[in-house]
Amino acid sequence: MTQKSKQMQVPIVQDILSANDEIALQNRETLDRTGICMVNLMASPGAGKTSLLLRTIESLRTKLRMAVIEGDIASTVDADRIAQENIPVVQINTGGQCHLDAPMLRRALHQLHLPDLDLIIVENVGNLICPVDFHLGEHLNIMIASVPEGDDKPYKYPGIFLAVDAVVINKIDLLPYVHFDLAAFRTLVTGMNPDVHIFEVSCETGVGIAPWADWLVQQTGKCQD
Amino acid sequence: MTQKSKQMQVPIVQDILSANDEIALQNRETLDRTGICMVNLMASPGAGKTSLLLRTIESLRTKLRMAVIEGDIASTVDADRIAQENIPVVQINTGGQCHLDAPMLRRALHQLHLPDLDLIIVENVGNLICPVDFHLGEHLNIMIASVPEGDDKPYKYPGIFLAVDAVVINKIDLLPYVHFDLAAFRTLVTGMNPDVHIFEVSCETGVGIAPWADWLVQQTGKCQD
Repeated sequence: MTQKSKQMQVPIVQDILSANDEIALQNRETLDRTGICMVNLMASPGAGKTSLLLRTIESLRTKLRMAVIEGDIASTVDADRIAQENIPVVQINTGGQCHLDAPMLRRALHQLHLPDLDLIIVENVGNLICPVDFHLGEHLNIMIASVPEGDDKPYKYPGIFLAVDAVVINKIDLLPYVHFDLAAFRTLVTGMNPDVHIFEVSCETGVGIAPWADWLVQQTGKCQD
Repeated sequence: MTQKSKQMQVPIVQDILSANDEIALQNRETLDRTGICMVNLMASPGAGKTSLLLRTIESLRTKLRMAVIEGDIASTVDADRIAQENIPVVQINTGGQCHLDAPMLRRALHQLHLPDLDLIIVENVGNLICPVDFHLGEHLNIMIASVPEGDDKPYKYPGIFLAVDAVVINKIDLLPYVHFDLAAFRTLVTGMNPDVHIFEVSCETGVGIAPWADWLVQQTGKCQD
């Protein structure tokens, strides 16, 4: 053993990425090379992820080149609805897993012709808990909170409210019929996550979609700078 | 080596229980010794688990001796509401885990005075996916499907619709304001799970609670036979 080898320091690898995060980083690099913005859309079952997608596609069809990646335990119900809009769509069936992960996204990205796209919206599995812990390579995390679910959800599912860049409050057309204190909900959410953007929409009537869509265009622009 | 030992067969242990299932079985034996019925109540966030509990307590207070075990990622919001009803209640905070499991239930059962009880209702974590795979020792699995979530959920979350003994369709007071085909939903659910009981209720107005509560009394009686 030479003097030199004795002096060599043991390499210390800090902050080791999980296998998922490693692949998420690769996905992110793939997207950044092409200037694509990827949004991870999360919500409870039935909060309106697919409805928000359809409204967003309607609003932005002439402004952005979009694709959708649909995550579900089973079925292609949602992907079939998106495909009718003539938008590229890839279905991921998780086969029971309660969230998408970065390797699934990598395989889905391989199915899309990336140079033709500005924005990819990923509809995660309907679940407020598990998807939060798995990075996909996304630029933005968005959640939908649905009015009939009630205004106490931030207390019970704090992780997702802390993790997101924006909360879209959907089904505001049902406000007259259910107990939901919009002001209290906003105060609670911004108290937990001061930088969060909050949008109030009804995918049923289309109210509030324009400011949400404008913000998404602006965010997509940042990915292309 | 003797002749006898040569003839001995290698023991084959089939259908080994998982650690969770083993403890679930112990929980079930504990309950059966005391003649208690335990119900595992599952639903999406905001479908009305706590509201159904409150209506059920109101209906059955004079007929059954009840306790509630509340499962949440965080907070005691729901348990605090139940405690106001002067019903024994135990809170389990899973600390991030997306479902309850049998060891958590065992610890919760230790907090209750079992000889004083006929019925324990467990409110699982709000999630249509993960709770299905973890037996707790329950006699009945019940899910709530909420009208504003839409009528396509059985396609997307088949596991839970296949696993339950009853589906409680909640928020039927919102039927005039949302798209939900009750007949189609019933046909779909009974096609997947022919033995399932279906109840239509509104925890807001109280409509439909009586048949549900009567059925629960009948099922509790079976545990005490």
